[in-house]
Formats: sequence, structure tokens, C-alpha cells
Amino acid sequence: MEALQRNHSKAPAKPLLRALAGERLNRPPVWLMRQAGRYLPEYRAVRQRVGSFLDLCFTPKLAAEVTLQPVRRFGMDAAILFSDILVVPYALGQAVRFEEGEGPVLDPVRDGDAVERLSTANFHERLGPVYDAVVEVAAALPSDTALIGFAGAPWTVACYMLEGGSSRDFSAVKLWALRHEQEFARLLDLLVEATADYLIRQVEAGAEALQIFDSWAGALAEAEFERWCIAPLAAITCRVRARHPEIPIIAFPRGGGFGCELLVARAGIQGIALDPTVPLRWAAERLQQHSALQGNLDPALLAAGGAVMERQVHRILKAWSKGAFIFNLGHGVLPSTPPEHVASLVGLIKSWRE
Amino acid sequence: MEALQRNHSKAPAKPLLRALAGERLNRPPVWLMRQAGRYLPEYRAVRQRVGSFLDLCFTPKLAAEVTLQPVRRFGMDAAILFSDILVVPYALGQAVRFEEGEGPVLDPVRDGDAVERLSTANFHERLGPVYDAVVEVAAALPSDTALIGFAGAPWTVACYMLEGGSSRDFSAVKLWALRHEQEFARLLDLLVEATADYLIRQVEAGAEALQIFDSWAGALAEAEFERWCIAPLAAITCRVRARHPEIPIIAFPRGGGFGCELLVARAGIQGIALDPTVPLRWAAERLQQHSALQGNLDPALLAAGGAVMERQVHRILKAWSKGAFIFNLGHGVLPSTPPEHVASLVGLIKSWRE
Repeated sequence: MEALQRNHSKAPAKPLLRALAGERLNRPPVWLMRQAGRYLPEYRAVRQRVGSFLDLCFTPKLAAEVTLQPVRRFGMDAAILFSDILVVPYALGQAVRFEEGEGPVLDPVRDGDAVERLSTANFHERLGPVYDAVVEVAAALPSDTALIGFAGAPWTVACYMLEGGSSRDFSAVKLWALRHEQEFARLLDLLVEATADYLIRQVEAGAEALQIFDSWAGALAEAEFERWCIAPLAAITCRVRARHPEIPIIAFPRGGGFGCELLVARAGIQGIALDPTVPLRWAAERLQQHSALQGNLDPALLAAGGAVMERQVHRILKAWSKGAFIFNLGHGVLPSTPPEHVASLVGLIKSWRE
Repeated sequence: MEALQRNHSKAPAKPLLRALAGERLNRPPVWLMRQAGRYLPEYRAVRQRVGSFLDLCFTPKLAAEVTLQPVRRFGMDAAILFSDILVVPYALGQAVRFEEGEGPVLDPVRDGDAVERLSTANFHERLGPVYDAVVEVAAALPSDTALIGFAGAPWTVACYMLEGGSSRDFSAVKLWALRHEQEFARLLDLLVEATADYLIRQVEAGAEALQIFDSWAGALAEAEFERWCIAPLAAITCRVRARHPEIPIIAFPRGGGFGCELLVARAGIQGIALDPTVPLRWAAERLQQHSALQGNLDPALLAAGGAVMERQVHRILKAWSKGAFIFNLGHGVLPSTPPEHVASLVGLIKSWRE
């Protein structure tokens, strides 16, 4: 009884953190990937005021402002820092730019020398504005809203670094990785170290939970998944939690499918974000005893709204609310999503009782 | 004994067909997706002689020639007709063109009227050159090499028809499908009917097995997979095998992951092609008793060649050779693949004995 009370008094008050501590809540906390973004008119208004997408990420006042917009409008249970996973290669010295409507373009790193030229010398200096944005958001958030920091996972960031942008088949990065095993291992090690440091600084600036996005995990064959997705993630969580043992970490291995089972067993995470292809029952049976589940509504259903959305929302709530669970999409909000649909979704979750 | 002999005398002689009939062979038959393609100098030489990619598909002599090239060079156990899955929307009256280095571009079908305008009136006439190519290939193949016909699955073809080309998030097709359920169902029905007829004609021209490519199955959430991948596939196999009960059908639900289990149980297929993310043991335990397995070497490993490739080839051979099995890649041959690597791979498979 005393132990229980002690536990209780130590339990973090914010719903998101309670779910990540393994607690089953009356209704799940809710936030949405890419909840700050183009579908919001107030985001587009801010976006117009700066030249490039990276300028927005690196202007603390504006990055903080767009981070807070969906929290104000919808009462989300968490804010996720507005930024981009490619600030890490940028801070390591790689040229990164965002072409309107085309996505990111990087000068690809494709030889050992280019890897050697990457440097952590100005890393935290270049990322200073991101840490400042975290401080601003932390100061402005409602008391029960958690602040999530984030970074890209080494495999996904390496994909962009080697492909020079998005890719359909990831042949450049895979061939390079297979032909230059040692250089690729060195690149992943560098990314593990830099990413862990980056996340630690976010925590020290005020982030209360972290999410690591492995957006291209689905491109990995079974054996590669273990080596290039799980191992680097485990190395990062180990470093971050050695410094900040209380900080929960969510991994998002998009397309990771079957691999999620090994990932929750090995990667030292407290939450796993699941894409819409992951079967609800399988996740409840195989993953939820190891990790809080987060997800997994298809963003197209949110954009469609109405009865088709509600039906699937109820299915997810029923399947996953018996354990630790955070409601979210299975991928980011689509730009074509009507904001009212987001309001209905949040209303549905907040009024839900099993 | 008599029954056994009768079975034996009825057993198809070609290794690919024996594997698809559920037989375990001493060494698996081997062919590769996109085995006729840009990585072969003799293919590039033929490609130069015609204006557009579709011209190549619709010139029977040349389509037959490139179909036969990898069989001649490597002694593959099967030829797959050289064509494209978008000949079906083209034959239904949609404008389709291939931009060099950009992939296919279609005038998107995005309203009920556009669906109504699609027509099967000139369908077989437009596809006549494809059937002629099948006849040519069938006449020229070595006696133990099987000829595979193919088509795109309705979901994947609908993606191209509605997105107007490739897509990163399939938001256009999904939103349209969710907002216009009846029109989308009508489009899928039309594609089921047209695709089944197209495959039946290929069989009548000389195809001995069929593969249906659902390249974008991985974009489907759990419930959608059942409705938009499995159900249309089942409807096609039902129609084709009602006419030609002896024709084996392979489905390739790329990225289908967990869904493969329900698919082999319901879709009436004899073979399932698996992408590189599908775990070897899981497939052997959950799928192989229902269907021959085909796959699943990562094409990047073939492009890399050498010891990394051989290691994975042996893993696949060991895991799947206890049942009906066809060696293949988990996706198409990459254009950067050295032809010698393909020769080594085929040599490895052909000399393999457990």
C-alpha cells in the first residue's frame, strides 16, 4: 500500500507520460504526427513569412509558434517540436535544402572522404535555434500537455544523406552500404552519437519525451532491419537514458511490420508508433506488454472524416485501450485534411470511455 | 501405386509448373522479376530501336525478343512476358505515357464520369499485340522453360489511374475511394473483369502460369487490405481458373506483410511472391503449406554480388527448400545490376543440393 502510494505520488501527471510509463488511462492521450503543418491556415500564414522551410525550423519564435498552434486549436495532449529530421545532417556539415513541392535535396555523401568530412565541430552551435525553440515551447505549454522532442533514426537519415533526397528503391544507399560495409558502419556510428547528443540537448531544453522516426524502416529486408534499424535505435536509447533515465522514448519504425516484435524486445523503448498496416490484434497481443502502443489511424481516413473515420477510430480504441496506449495517426496529417476533421477526432477520443 | 503413377504421368514436366503444383524439387526453379530490362546491354540495344516504352510493349517481335534475352543468356526456368501493368488502363481508354526517367504519367480518372468513360469496347483489339507477343515467345522457348503471363492487381492499377502516376502517400486514390465508395467499387469491378479477361487471353495465347502484381499493397491499412487487395485478387483467380482450372496463379502483394497469411488462405492462388521484408521462418511456417513460396532476395544484394549475396541466397535456400519453392528476387532487378551477378546467382541455384 505504501509502495503503491509512493508509486502513485511519483507518477508523472501528464497523460502522455503516464501512458509511456505503462499506465492504462480512462481514455488515451492523443496527438498527431505532423499536427503542425500545411493543413492549418495559421501554419500557412507563418510559413509565408519566412523564405525557406529550414529558416522556419531555425527561427525559434516561429518554430515555437507553429508547434503550439495545434495545441491551442485542438487541445492536444502533446506538442511535438516543429523541426525536420534533416537538421542533423545539416548540422554535420552536409548541404541540405528544401525545394518547394519537391521535398529535400542534399549533396549526397557517397564516398569515405565525404563521410570523413562530416564533422560535429559546429553541431550544437548550428542546432542552437532548435534548443531555443524547445525552451520557448516548454515555457508556453499548458500544464498537462507534454512536450515531445524528436530526431530521425540513423537508417532513415543515412538514406537521405546517401540518396540525396527521397528514393523509390533505396538502391543507392543499400548498394553503398553493402559495398562499403565499414564506411557505412562508421556513418551509422556517427549518426548514433550525434543523434543521441541532439536528443539529450532537447531534453535539457525541456523535452519530456522523445520520438525517433525511422520512416524508411520498411525498405529493409529481415536481416538488415536488425542491423540498420534496431541496433542503432538501441544504441541511441542506451545513451540518452544513461544520461536521463526518466525520459521515455517512442520509436516509429514505419513499414517495420514483423520487425516490430524484435524491436520492442531489444531497442529499450517505452513506446512504439505503428503505421496503419500493423494489425490491431497482433500489436495488442505481441507488443503491448513490452511497450505502450501509439497509432495507427490511416491519415486518409482523417482527411475523409465522417463515419468511415469514426468506425476505424472505435476499432482502434477497442483493440488497444486495454493497455498502455496513445492515440495517433499511422503517419503524418495529410495537407488536404480539413481542420474540422481533426477537431472531431480529438473530440471522439476525449469523450471516449470503454 | 497406380494412383501415384497416374499422378506422376500427369505432373507437368517444367520445373516452375511442378513447384506451383506443390512439388518440392531437388533444386528450386529460378527466374527474376524484371529479368528483361535495362541492366542487359542487349535489352538497351532493342529499346533504342523504338520510340517509346509502350511501343516496345506493343511490337510483338521486339517484346518477344526482350522476353527471351534473359532465358538465352542465363538459362532461366521461366520467361515472363515483357509488358507493363498499365497496358490495361490504356486498353480501357485512359491516356498513358512513359516519360524518360520519370515513370508513367496518366490523365487521372477522378470522377464518376471518367470511370463511366472507361470502356472495354476496344480492349482486346488494343491488347492484340500483347497476345501476339505471347504466341511468339511460346513458340521460341526451350521445352523446360515455362512462360508466365502477368497483369497488375486492381488496387495497384487503380492507384496509377487515380494518382496519375507514382505516389508517395496514395492520398488521392485513398481519399477518392473513401469519399466515393460506390464509384471506387465500380472501378475495381471493372478492373477485375478486364484483368481476368486479359489473363485468360494470355493463357489462350500460350502463357502457362500467371503472376498478378500488387505493387502498392503495402500502402493498405489492415481492413483495406482485405477489401482492396485480397477480394479483387480472389475474384480474378476465380474467373481465370473457372475457364482454365489447370493454370497456376502467383500473387505478388508487395509490402503486404502480415496480410499474406489471409491472402494465401482466401485468394485461390498457387504461389505467393514475397518481398525482402518477409521473414523467412514465418513464411515457411505460415504460408508454405497453402502456397508455393517465391522470392525473396533483396535486389540490392544481387547488384552488390559476391559473399554478401551468397550468404543470403543460402539462407533463403535453406529456409524454403523443404516445401514448394521458386527462387526469385523480392522485387525487380535494379538497372545498375552487373549481368555477371545474375549469372552467378543462377549458377548458385542450379548447382544447389540440400
